[in-house]
Amino acid sequence: MNIHDENGTTVLRRADEKEPPRTLANLLIGKPLATADAPHETIGKVVGLAVFASDALSSTAYAPQEIMAILIVAGLSSYQYVFPIALVIVGLLAIVTISYEQTIHAYPNGGGAFIVSRDNLGMWAGKIAAAALLSDYILTVAVSISSGVAQIVSAFPNLFDYRVWIAVGLIFLIMLINLRGVRESGIIFAVPTYFFVVMMFVTVIVGLVRYFSGSLGTVIDPPEMEMLHSTQVVTGFLLIRAFANGTTALTGVEAISDGIPAFRQPRSHNAGVTLIWMSCILGALMLGISFLGANIHALPSEVETVISQLARTAYDGRGTLYLMTIIATMVILVMAANTSFADFPRLGAFAAADGLLPRQLTQKGARLVFSRGIVLLALMASLLVIIFQASVSRLIPLYAIGVFVSFTLSQTGMARRWFKIGKLKEGEEVKERSSVLRYEPTWKFKMIINGFGAVATFAVMIMFAATKFMDGAWVIILIIPLLVTLFSVIQRHYINLAKKLSMDNYGSPPPRVTRNRVLVPIGGVHRGTLAALRYARALSDDITAVHIAVDPEEAERVRQKWEQWGDGVRLMIVESSYRRFMEPLLLYIDEIYQRKQPNEVITIVVPMFVSHKRATDILHTNTADALREALMFRKGIVITNVPYLID
Amino acid sequence: MNIHDENGTTVLRRADEKEPPRTLANLLIGKPLATADAPHETIGKVVGLAVFASDALSSTAYAPQEIMAILIVAGLSSYQYVFPIALVIVGLLAIVTISYEQTIHAYPNGGGAFIVSRDNLGMWAGKIAAAALLSDYILTVAVSISSGVAQIVSAFPNLFDYRVWIAVGLIFLIMLINLRGVRESGIIFAVPTYFFVVMMFVTVIVGLVRYFSGSLGTVIDPPEMEMLHSTQVVTGFLLIRAFANGTTALTGVEAISDGIPAFRQPRSHNAGVTLIWMSCILGALMLGISFLGANIHALPSEVETVISQLARTAYDGRGTLYLMTIIATMVILVMAANTSFADFPRLGAFAAADGLLPRQLTQKGARLVFSRGIVLLALMASLLVIIFQASVSRLIPLYAIGVFVSFTLSQTGMARRWFKIGKLKEGEEVKERSSVLRYEPTWKFKMIINGFGAVATFAVMIMFAATKFMDGAWVIILIIPLLVTLFSVIQRHYINLAKKLSMDNYGSPPPRVTRNRVLVPIGGVHRGTLAALRYARALSDDITAVHIAVDPEEAERVRQKWEQWGDGVRLMIVESSYRRFMEPLLLYIDEIYQRKQPNEVITIVVPMFVSHKRATDILHTNTADALREALMFRKGIVITNVPYLID
Repeated sequence: MNIHDENGTTVLRRADEKEPPRTLANLLIGKPLATADAPHETIGKVVGLAVFASDALSSTAYAPQEIMAILIVAGLSSYQYVFPIALVIVGLLAIVTISYEQTIHAYPNGGGAFIVSRDNLGMWAGKIAAAALLSDYILTVAVSISSGVAQIVSAFPNLFDYRVWIAVGLIFLIMLINLRGVRESGIIFAVPTYFFVVMMFVTVIVGLVRYFSGSLGTVIDPPEMEMLHSTQVVTGFLLIRAFANGTTALTGVEAISDGIPAFRQPRSHNAGVTLIWMSCILGALMLGISFLGANIHALPSEVETVISQLARTAYDGRGTLYLMTIIATMVILVMAANTSFADFPRLGAFAAADGLLPRQLTQKGARLVFSRGIVLLALMASLLVIIFQASVSRLIPLYAIGVFVSFTLSQTGMARRWFKIGKLKEGEEVKERSSVLRYEPTWKFKMIINGFGAVATFAVMIMFAATKFMDGAWVIILIIPLLVTLFSVIQRHYINLAKKLSMDNYGSPPPRVTRNRVLVPIGGVHRGTLAALRYARALSDDITAVHIAVDPEEAERVRQKWEQWGDGVRLMIVESSYRRFMEPLLLYIDEIYQRKQPNEVITIVVPMFVSHKRATDILHTNTADALREALMFRKGIVITNVPYLID
Repeated sequence: MNIHDENGTTVLRRADEKEPPRTLANLLIGKPLATADAPHETIGKVVGLAVFASDALSSTAYAPQEIMAILIVAGLSSYQYVFPIALVIVGLLAIVTISYEQTIHAYPNGGGAFIVSRDNLGMWAGKIAAAALLSDYILTVAVSISSGVAQIVSAFPNLFDYRVWIAVGLIFLIMLINLRGVRESGIIFAVPTYFFVVMMFVTVIVGLVRYFSGSLGTVIDPPEMEMLHSTQVVTGFLLIRAFANGTTALTGVEAISDGIPAFRQPRSHNAGVTLIWMSCILGALMLGISFLGANIHALPSEVETVISQLARTAYDGRGTLYLMTIIATMVILVMAANTSFADFPRLGAFAAADGLLPRQLTQKGARLVFSRGIVLLALMASLLVIIFQASVSRLIPLYAIGVFVSFTLSQTGMARRWFKIGKLKEGEEVKERSSVLRYEPTWKFKMIINGFGAVATFAVMIMFAATKFMDGAWVIILIIPLLVTLFSVIQRHYINLAKKLSMDNYGSPPPRVTRNRVLVPIGGVHRGTLAALRYARALSDDITAVHIAVDPEEAERVRQKWEQWGDGVRLMIVESSYRRFMEPLLLYIDEIYQRKQPNEVITIVVPMFVSHKRATDILHTNTADALREALMFRKGIVITNVPYLID
C-alpha cells in the first residue's frame, strides 16, 4: 500500500512484510514484534520456565559444592554449617524474588537491570549495570561450561587431563550454533530443563528417603583431598566466605524480568508466576543438595563433583540413573551458557541504542555485527577457561560480583521509582521512557520491599568483594570502571558527531556540482574494463582512462587495444619508472586534484571482479579499497567500484 | 614532459619522479631501480658481506652443536668424529660455493633458485623451489631466534623457563620493525656482522693458542646430561645423521646470488668475490668451533650452548669477552632471522608475478599486502617456536631440507643452461627471460661443476630426508607438495580469468546506459546526507532519497527536514515493521531492480563518515560495505560512498 502525501514524499507500507526468520536468539529475547502489531505467538508459563530457568537452576550444580569447598579447610566437622548457610541463601533468594516480582509488574516490556537503573537513577547507573552484566555474561559461559565439563569428568575420569580442551570445544560448538542462527522452538529448552528438574528431584528424594531410613551412609571411595585432616578452626570469616560462594546460586534469577515480552498475555502475571515457580524449585534443590551433600560427606574436588558423589551414593553406584543425572546436569549447564549468547548481544543492542557502544550493534539484522558479539563472547570465555584451567572454584571469585552489582542497582532503581509514584496524585499517570508511573496506595510498602532487597544485595556484594578480593574479585572491580569509561568515551563521540552534523547554523547549501571529472584506472583492456567504462559514460562526458605503464610493451598493447575498444575516450599513459602502480596513480590523481575547481568533483571508477567462489576474492587486487584508503581525506574525490561477475 | 600522439593518447613521463623511500627491505633486495636508469647508489664488497652474510655465518652458532648432539648418544669418545664431519661439510660448502659462483656470473640481475630452476627446468621446478624456499624462510626465523635465545639463556640461566616467550617476543619485535619499514643503511648490518666475525675469530684463536700450548683443558662444570655414559656404539647411520645435522651450516649461502643487483659494478664480479670471502669465513669458523668444541668436551644442551661453553673455557669464565661473544652471537642470529622478513615477501612477489600467488603481492608499494606477508611469517615462525619449545635440536630435522631442495634444483638448472649454451654457435647470443645465453668454450667444464654440485646437494637432501624423516622432516616433505598444489590452483584461476576477460570473441559492445537511477539511503537529514545528495545531483537527475522508518516519530522529523533541505528531491519513506534497517532497504532496492530496463543502471549513493581518528571508524555504520556485500551479484547496481570528514 502506497500513501502519497502532498510534498513529494512517498510512504511505503508493506502489508505483506515478512516476519524475519525465528532464531534461537529471537525465542530468548522475545519474538520480533511488528511495531503496530499486538503480540500473538508467545509462550506460556510451562515453556517460559524452561526457556528462562536454565541459568538459575543450573547454578545448583556448583553452588553447594562451592560452599563446601570453603568449609572443608576446617575439616569435615565444619559441614554442620552447610545447611544453615544454604538456608540463609534461600532467604536471600526469597528477598530477590519478591523484589523482582515487583519489577516484572512495573516493566511489562522488560525490566532488565540496565533499563531500570538507567530510567530511575540516571545514565551513570545504567552504565555500571551494563558493565557488570556484560562481564557477568562472559563468566556465566566460563563457569557453566567448566562445571558441565566437571560433571563429564566425574563420570569419565579418564577425560580429566583434557578438561580444558573439552570446555573450549563446547564453547566453540555453542558459538557455531549461535552463529548459524538455528531456528528453534521452546521444546528444545523444555526437554533438557524438565529432564534436569525431574532427575534432580528424584535424586534428592531418593537420597532423603534413604537418609531418614538410615540406609544412605557416606560416599564410598571419595576423591582424595589433602586438606581433609586440617586442624583449622571455623571462624566467622570462613562462614562469610562460604556464604559468598553460595550466593552464586542466585545468578540467573533476573533472566525472567528481561524476557517478559515473550510471555503470553497477561504478560506480567504469567512472568511473575513463572518467577515464583522457578525460585521455589531453585530453593528446594539448593536445600536438598546442600543437606544431603554435607551428610554423605561429599568432598569438593576438581576430579569429581558433589552432584556426582551425591548421585552415586543415592543410587548405590554408577548405574543408569546416575548417568542420567550427570547427563541432565551437564546439558542444563550447557543450556545456561547458551543463554548468555543471546543475552550478551541483546544488552549490547540496548547500550548501543543509547550511544554507549557502536551503533551498528542495534541492527538486529546485521548478521556480521551480531556475529562479532558472539565470537567476542566465545573468545573471552575460552580465555577465562584456559587461564583458570576450567576450575569452577578458581572462577567463582570473579563471578557473582557483577550479578550483585546489577541486583543492587536494579532494586535501588525500583525503590526510587516507588518514591516518585508516591509523589503522584491519585489516578495520575506519567509516561516515562520504558514504563508508565501510576499512583498506587501501597507504594510505601513496595518501596520498603525493593529498598530492603537493595540493601541486602548490596551487603552481599560488599561481603563478596571484600572476602574474594585477592582471589580474583579485583579483576571484575577493575573491569567495571574501565567499561564504564569506554561507554562514556563512545557516548561523547556520538554527541559530538551529532553536533557537527547538525543542520543548525548550516547557512545556505553550497552551489551545485558543475563538473564531474571521471578517471578510470585500467591495468589492461578487458571485459571488466569495458564494464567500468560503460558505467563511467553514464556519469559524465568528461572521462579519462589512466594506464600506469609498469612495462612499456604492455603499455603499447593497451594503447593499441584502446584505439579499438576505448569508444573515443581519452587515454593517459603514466610511466612508472620504479615499477610501482599505486604511487604514480596517486601522484597523477593528486595533480588533477590540485587543479580542481570548488564546484568540481572527481570520480574514480574502478572495475572490481566478483565471483561466487568467495575464496578467490583474495586473488584479485582491490584497487578501489586501496584508493579509498589513500584518498579518504581529499574532499571532493569519490571512489566507485563497478562489479564485474567473472563466473 | 608530456608527449601527445595522434590518437588522443597522452603519455606522461615525469622527469622528477621521486625515488620511493629506502627501507630495510629495499637495501636487502637491492635499491628500487628505475627501469631506464643505470644503477648508481649500490653497495661494495665490505658492506655487501655484512648485508648478505648474517644468515650463513650465524649458522656456525648451531651447526657444530647439532653434530655433537647426535654423536653424544655414543658417549664422549665419539667426539673424535666431529672434526672429520666438519671437514666434509666444508668440502660440501666449497662445492656449493663454486656452483653459486657460476650462477652469479650467469644471472647478473639476480639468480635465486626460483628464477634459475623456472627458466631452465620449467615452471614445475620453479614451483618446487618456491615452495621449498618459503618453508625454509619460516624455519630460518624459528631456528635463528631459538638459537639466539639459547645463547641468552646460556649467559643468564634464570631465563630458561621463559625461553619460549622471549623467542616469541623477539619475533614480534622484528615483525614490528619490519612493519614500520625502518629506513636503514648498510651500517646497521655492518656493525653486528663484523662484530660477530671479530669476536668469533678472537675466541677461536685464543682457544687454539691455549689448546696447542696445553692450557685449555675441558669445560668446567658442563651442563648435566643423562646420556653421557651411554654404551651405544658409533654406527655409520649415526655418522650420517650427525653429518646431516651439520649441513645446516650451509643455510644462507644462496643469499648473495639473490642480491646481486644491490652490488656496485662490475656487479657479478663484486658479488662473486663477496661470496668467496663469506664461504672462507664460514668454513674457517665451522672448522675452528667444531675442533675446539669437541676437544673441550662441550656438551650439546638446551641449557647452555656449545658457543657459550667454548667462550667461557677459552676466556676462563664469564667475563667481559665471554659476554661480548654471547651478545655478538645472539645479535647476528637475530639479524639472520630479520633477513627472512625481506626474503619472504620478495619471493612472494616473484611467484605472484608468475600467477602462482595473489597478484597483489607484486605491488611493492601496497603496504597492506606486504604487511600481511610479514605478519604471516611471524605467526608461522612463532607457532613453530611454541610447538618445538624454542629447541634448536627439535627444529633442525625440519630445516635444511628446503635449502637442499632449492640447491639441487638451482644447480640442475645451471647444468641444463650450460648444456643449452654448448649447443650455440660461437658468438651467438640468445636472450632468455632473465639472462642472456652466450657461447663459452669452457661450457663442458662448467656444466660438470654445476652437475656435480647438483648431485652432491641431491645426495645430502636424500640423506637428510631419510635419516630425519620420523624426527620431523616429514612435515616439510608434506608441505612442499601442498604448496606446489596451491600454486597450481592459483595459476589455473588466473589463466581462466584471463580467458574470460579476453576481448577475443567479444562481439559488439552493449548499447550505452540510458538511465542512471540514483538512490540515496538516509538515516537522518544532516550535513553528511546533504554532501551525498550534492554528489548524487552530479550523477543524474533521477534521484530518490530513501528513509527506512524504524521509528515513526523519527520518520516524521526526517520528512519535515527534507522539505527544507531536500532540494526538491523525491523522498521515499519505507516503513519497517520489525525495527530492522537493512532488510526493508534491500527489499526496496530489489523491487526497483526488478523493474530495471537493460540499459539502465542503479547507483546507490551512501554517505560515509571519515575521521582522522581511525579508531572511531568502528563507531560508524558502514552501510556501503553491507550493501556491496548483499548486492554484489546484481548486475547493473553500483554502490558509491561519499566520504564526509567529521573532524
